[in-house]
Amino acid sequence: MAVYTDITEGELRHFLQTYELGDLLSYRGIAEGVENSNFIVHLERGEFILTLYEKRVNEEDLPFFIGLMDHLAAKGFACPRPVKRQDGTVIGHLAGRPAAMVTFLEGVWPREPSVVHCAEAGAALAQMHLAVADYEGYRRNALTLPDWRPLFEQVGDKADEVIDGLAEETRAMLDRLEAEWPTDLPSGVIHADAFPDNVFFLGDRFSGLIDFYFACNDLFAYDVAVALNAWCFDADHRFDRQKSAAMLDAYQRVRPLSDDERKALPALCRGAATRFMLTRLYDWIHTPADATVTKKDPRQPLAWMRYHAAASGPGAYGLNA
Amino acid sequence: MAVYTDITEGELRHFLQTYELGDLLSYRGIAEGVENSNFIVHLERGEFILTLYEKRVNEEDLPFFIGLMDHLAAKGFACPRPVKRQDGTVIGHLAGRPAAMVTFLEGVWPREPSVVHCAEAGAALAQMHLAVADYEGYRRNALTLPDWRPLFEQVGDKADEVIDGLAEETRAMLDRLEAEWPTDLPSGVIHADAFPDNVFFLGDRFSGLIDFYFACNDLFAYDVAVALNAWCFDADHRFDRQKSAAMLDAYQRVRPLSDDERKALPALCRGAATRFMLTRLYDWIHTPADATVTKKDPRQPLAWMRYHAAASGPGAYGLNA
Repeated sequence: MAVYTDITEGELRHFLQTYELGDLLSYRGIAEGVENSNFIVHLERGEFILTLYEKRVNEEDLPFFIGLMDHLAAKGFACPRPVKRQDGTVIGHLAGRPAAMVTFLEGVWPREPSVVHCAEAGAALAQMHLAVADYEGYRRNALTLPDWRPLFEQVGDKADEVIDGLAEETRAMLDRLEAEWPTDLPSGVIHADAFPDNVFFLGDRFSGLIDFYFACNDLFAYDVAVALNAWCFDADHRFDRQKSAAMLDAYQRVRPLSDDERKALPALCRGAATRFMLTRLYDWIHTPADATVTKKDPRQPLAWMRYHAAASGPGAYGLNA
Repeated sequence: MAVYTDITEGELRHFLQTYELGDLLSYRGIAEGVENSNFIVHLERGEFILTLYEKRVNEEDLPFFIGLMDHLAAKGFACPRPVKRQDGTVIGHLAGRPAAMVTFLEGVWPREPSVVHCAEAGAALAQMHLAVADYEGYRRNALTLPDWRPLFEQVGDKADEVIDGLAEETRAMLDRLEAEWPTDLPSGVIHADAFPDNVFFLGDRFSGLIDFYFACNDLFAYDVAVALNAWCFDADHRFDRQKSAAMLDAYQRVRPLSDDERKALPALCRGAATRFMLTRLYDWIHTPADATVTKKDPRQPLAWMRYHAAASGPGAYGLNA
């Protein structure tokens, strides 16, 4: 939940002068995104989302993110399209922060994803993975294997204050991941955060992918592993193999996984679960009690991690080995 | 800043079945209103604001508030218009809370109100006061003179922990208000919370009044006093007589104040400032430190109160006596 920064009409009008979108009709802060401040802006020429990038987004990465959305939208992939300013650029400044406007995307993110939603999300992810083939931007994944142990060491034995025995369990998992992590799988630009709240639907049909602010270059199959974690566990942390099979099947109809990618799925799922467990654990320990940010519980991805720890092969996800 | 309650698509679709507005296209929680949860909802037949009424709004009062908006909109006054359901009613239930939909109103509330804004707001308030003449609803003002002392006694000497000497200063002000409060002035339904964030503009022109959830029956001139407090002090708590003169002049072009109303203005302004000081003081002391609600500082209306304490007559507001 956001709107960290409010903006005055004067500031906004000044910013809008750099666009050719007509007069300002209204703007409302929306309670979405934990990283940035977002507004729905009505202008004479349409409806847009204005994002002010708060400090957790590195300004140097913005051309990669914005360029990616522009590239995908130009390919016909359903995502917000950055709006160009009169001088052809897309990133401006507002209230002392980098800011950009993108087109408003209709759709609703599924609070209770169904098997059909999972299939649609899988197909959309595969479409994105094909559409990035000729995107020239590059951004290293700052939250992948080499980053996890240093992140964990900033928490260390405090992990046990959150969940008894977690420090030792995490160290053992990191040992395992460092030994098994695949490196020679197909890679390219991935979304890296394709959780249900970033995927819009109109009814049962995929209508758009949003929030590319974790996008980076990494293994395509790792993106699939993130999505399997994000979509296929229920509220009681039980894995739903019908959902994962539907997601993987729909993904593969667009972009078939290689044998090596399929074999690597359990390890990649362990890694993805560990990544989210670690960042949530870090935030859990470092977020002040009086902060207005909702802290996400690390217990949820820990349960995912444990499921994948026991997964012996791709059959755990409804795939034949 | 709100969205206390999130809603699932399933719940929302079920709720929307009671309307005839077409399919759901999108909904986004908006960061507006401290009392309720608000969403911008796009349906095939238009754009609406959906409000879920949280516990601070008494469900028994909703027919008064919703009926008032409906009455005013039917008179051509610019405010959100409640949308009728198929059965003709306007209040339903969603996520265990009373809920209603109103039309989306274009406009921007002024973060930095100008003299022109003050004039427009004054004229709009007077138009509302004329338009309520034949509204049949009645709601007692639950935050007027008889309510202030009991509210203050729940704070008592703790007031001194917030501002040294505040308890004594408040008791003296309550004594004074109880002695001077006018009773036989023109009355009717007032907005009672016409702060800038509830008044929308397109450019310099008034485009709509929102948030009628403090509306009640009381003196019209008390509504004016609330607005003088809300609009005419600058960030350094200095009163701007040019703004108050513009607001009162524009108000009187639509609804002239009687001599008695004009004479009572200083007392009414003292009372309005005291009312906001008291509720903010109460919230300041009773809101837990870790609450996500932004606490409003009682020092601001205290400064207003002190300005009006020294006001000797309507001249303090740019009016001739």
